[in-house]
Order: sequence, then C-alpha cells, then structure tokens
Amino acid sequence: MITLGIDIGGTSIKGGFVDEKGGISNRFVLPIDHHKSQEEIIGELVSVTKEALRKVALPIKGIGVGCPGSIDSLRGSCDYSNNLGWENLPLASLLSKGTGLPVKIANDANAAALGEVIFGVGKGYQNLVFLTIGTGIGSGLYLNGHLYEGNEGKGAELGHTLLREGGARCTCGRKGCFEAYCSVGAFVALTKRTMRSNPDSLMWKSISGDLEKVTSHTAFDCAKRGDQAAQKVLDKYIYFLGEGILNIINAFRPEIIVLGGGLSGQKEALTIPLVAYLEKNEYGFGGKHSPVVRIATSEFGNDAGILGAASLVF
Amino acid sequence: MITLGIDIGGTSIKGGFVDEKGGISNRFVLPIDHHKSQEEIIGELVSVTKEALRKVALPIKGIGVGCPGSIDSLRGSCDYSNNLGWENLPLASLLSKGTGLPVKIANDANAAALGEVIFGVGKGYQNLVFLTIGTGIGSGLYLNGHLYEGNEGKGAELGHTLLREGGARCTCGRKGCFEAYCSVGAFVALTKRTMRSNPDSLMWKSISGDLEKVTSHTAFDCAKRGDQAAQKVLDKYIYFLGEGILNIINAFRPEIIVLGGGLSGQKEALTIPLVAYLEKNEYGFGGKHSPVVRIATSEFGNDAGILGAASLVF
Repeated sequence: MITLGIDIGGTSIKGGFVDEKGGISNRFVLPIDHHKSQEEIIGELVSVTKEALRKVALPIKGIGVGCPGSIDSLRGSCDYSNNLGWENLPLASLLSKGTGLPVKIANDANAAALGEVIFGVGKGYQNLVFLTIGTGIGSGLYLNGHLYEGNEGKGAELGHTLLREGGARCTCGRKGCFEAYCSVGAFVALTKRTMRSNPDSLMWKSISGDLEKVTSHTAFDCAKRGDQAAQKVLDKYIYFLGEGILNIINAFRPEIIVLGGGLSGQKEALTIPLVAYLEKNEYGFGGKHSPVVRIATSEFGNDAGILGAASLVF
Repeated sequence: MITLGIDIGGTSIKGGFVDEKGGISNRFVLPIDHHKSQEEIIGELVSVTKEALRKVALPIKGIGVGCPGSIDSLRGSCDYSNNLGWENLPLASLLSKGTGLPVKIANDANAAALGEVIFGVGKGYQNLVFLTIGTGIGSGLYLNGHLYEGNEGKGAELGHTLLREGGARCTCGRKGCFEAYCSVGAFVALTKRTMRSNPDSLMWKSISGDLEKVTSHTAFDCAKRGDQAAQKVLDKYIYFLGEGILNIINAFRPEIIVLGGGLSGQKEALTIPLVAYLEKNEYGFGGKHSPVVRIATSEFGNDAGILGAASLVF
C-alpha cells in the first residue's frame, strides 16, 4: 500500500510517496510564494501533485495533507492559518478534484501523532500524546486507538493550557500558557535572562559575547561542559516542561508521550532530567497507584511532516 | 431494557433499576460501616443486590457501578480509594460472581459523563466534558463518541491540572491545581478571606458573625442582595473557574461542558457570569475561528450517581 503524504510548511510544501514501512520515495518540493493567493498556490500544488502521480507506476490509495493552523478535518478545509495567511480554504476538495484521489487533511501536529502510532515510537499504543517543541508548542492526541481532534478539529491545543494564570504573555493572547514557558523561543529567552545575571558564565564565551547568537543549543552545550549558569537554565526549563507534562499525564494518562520539534533533537540531554523530574513527582495524580508514562523522542526528523500526513490515509 | 445502577459514595451505597428513559425504580441503600473490611462490605452489597434482583420480575441486562477513586475499568477493580480506604479490590468479579450478571465499573465522574450523554443534557453530542464541582473537582471525558478513561482508567483528572504552578497546595500533594482554586472548599475559603478584609459586608450578618457557618451559598445569596464584597468573591471565583474551563476548551474543544456537583446547584447564578467570561475571552484559542462551547448544568441532582452507573451497561 502506498499513499502520498503532503506536508505544508511556512515556506514550502513537501511531498513524498510513503510505503507501509515508512519508506519515502519520489519526493517533491513546491516553494510557497507568499505574494500569490491561496487559490493560486493550491492550483500549483495540484499541478505538481499530478506530475508526481504520473511518474509513479503503482496504484496510490489516497493523499494525506498535514497543514498548520486551524483545520476542519471533517470538512477538509483550512479555516485559518496565521502563518500562511489562508482562510476558509477547501483544501481537500480542491486537491481531490484536481487529482481524482481521496484526500484527507489534518492539523500537522495531529497528523504527526498518528504518524508516530503507525510508523514511529508509538506503534501499538492505544493512548499517545505528541508534543512538538519548536517555535510554539504543538500537540496531537491519539486516544482510545483513534486520533482525537475535537469539535471542528479545533482541539488538542495543549500548548495553550496554563502553567501560571496571569503569567508570561503568549502569542495566542492569553497569559501564562505552557507555550509561553516551554517553546524554543521561551527557552532562548530564559537562557539570555540567566546569562545577563551571570556575566562569568561560559555561555558568554560560547557566543563570543553576542546575545543575538544564543540558540537552543547554548545552554545544553555549556551545561555539558560543567557551566553552573547553563545548568540553572536547564533546571528551570525542566521544571516548567515537567509541570506541563504532569498536566498532560493527569488529564490523559497516556501510555506514552512523544516529544518532537527542534528541542527534541537534544534527545537524552532533555529526556533524562525530564524523566527524573516526573519520577520525583511519582508521575502525577495517584502516585504509586498509577502507571508510569513512557517519555520518548520522535525519530522522524525532517520527514515527520510527510510521514504524519501519509498516515492519514493508511 | 433495564439495568441496575449502583453508586458507591463515602457513607452509603445506593442502587436502583434504570429504564431506557432514565426512570429509576426499586431503589435500595446500604450504609457503609467503615469498621468492616472491603470484602465484608462487598459481601453485604452482593446480598442486598441479590435481594433487589429477586424483587424485580423483568430481565436485567447488567449492573453498572460508579465508584470514587482510582478505578481500573478494564480489570474491573478499585485499585485505590482514599475516602473508602479500599485497595486492589476486584469489585466487578465479586459482584458478577455473586449475582450471575455482567458487571462494569468506572470512576464515578467518568460514569457521570456517560450518564449525561445517555440520559441528560449531553444527548447527541460526540465530545463532552463533565466537571463535578464539589469537595474536589472531578471530571469525566466523552470523546469521539466514547468514554475516555486513559491507561488503566487513570486519566481524566482535570481537577489536577494547573492554574498556577507553585500556587495553593492541593489535596493531591501538588501545588496550584484547578481543584485547589475551584472546589467548594476553595470557594468557601475565598469567601472567608474576603469577609475578613470586608468587616462591613452583608455576609457577616447572614452568618450571624460566625465564620463556621459560611457555606457555598453565603456569597451567592449576598451578591444577589447587592453586597459588593460578596460580588468580589464571585468575580474572583469566576476568573479561576473561567481560566480552568478555557484550559479544557483549548485541550479538548468539546461541543459541551456539563457542570455537576454541589456548586452547579447555583444554576444561572454560576453559568451566566461564567459564559460572559468565556465570551469575553472568545472561547479560547482560535477566537472567532473556533466554535462556541455550550455550558450547561446537570439536571440529575441526587440521582446522578445511579444514572451514571446504569449508563455503563446501556
């Protein structure tokens, strides 16, 4: 069985044919020209997709599309995407009409959750939460053996539940969201704040004294070299991330939480202290009477989007 | 179709036969003697249930049991109940063996969520969150048209997600939980704090100057009579409850949230300002692009437990 996965990003649309083992072939990329209308861009996508379909000889079961923003997966529309400037776009029907194939679309993080269950570390689990730690905190829910998207596909916004009411301003307008404390941007801001109050930190040397060069690697790298201020950054961040994950555990008690996105690339440097924090807190409500929750990082890397999208029609 | 619903509470076990319209007949009550062992109490429950079954002439499809605490609904066991002092009790198999009928058990709040879908204001909805505002904040989730209980039935503890990390101490041991700000106990404590800093408040008169007499009605009653301090209590509480419900909306985007438990008896006095708060915040993430969430109060009153339990085998 082969499906076509299409991953819509902020600057380009990536596609690839995915087999039952998660192998990807015949990839294509369509750069997004933001001067064009949403209809023009989808027109281009239809052309590129038809061309790709002509090139593969095998029968294709369907097309899955992962799209950022507010997606109504039942109606197959992108209701609103802040990054792309799209609104009320009937993406599935346009692409289906253009290609003659069944098309399913979903929010990219929801698709990624399903991708983990079908191809990734989530295989065989009935209840999985996927968290992507990048520019924002995205999330996808796989519950009772099915994707859970909420009414009109507008649920699963775990990045916009609170850590601290009235706290740090979030991009969504609310104050104190999980995302406002745990996104990559929040991590970098925490690193900079800690550096300012620790002028002797190794972190200053590592960025040649230029705060603009601070990235999400700065504190991780310097903590490994024994820098105490960098370790403070990690400790504080693990506290926030741990509290956010305890919320997820208490609300869902999934068997597994999979971390994706930029920060998950730190692998054990992130998960070992995180798991230690969760163990110290007995994995949340119920303590010893409740089952342990496995914490894993996604292995998909840059292919997460295509594999997640392809999963929608598997 | 008739089933038997059994509602295990802190001081007594209530039962009743429930028909497809939610009518309850042939009720029985078994007081819980806390000096007896869990096995002795279940032995008594089996006797009382058998006697009740002999009295009804109709065929009974099965028995549903709602039980407080940490319930493994798949294994049919009460793994732990703090209030009852029960641990590792194979409730379903004991009751099934004793009566010869199929038995399903669930956490009482999870059963109540299902009860609302089958008999109550939740009829016809696919995604519903039930919140009981009483001694604690209990919750039940009905998602994608099915009860969601999490691994080993240990999920759906929305009362133990955060409003404020590091905040008020919760009974669960964590700091800053939704429950620590929004349970009836938290509401009464907020009322008392506000009274202490408002010695001229009408609330003092209403309780004859005796703080021990403050209940969850005190602030509601005096606010209706125009007392400003009482209104302050309600405003503050609605802020906390509203923020907690915005969390639930962002995480689940259900079609409806049903409020049960003691405080829900305030009906419109609670829901009108709550809905106003949610409207002011555009029903959470996505604002005008996301669907409105209906807020309703349960109509079940004292029968919630029996009806919720009976729903498990409908």
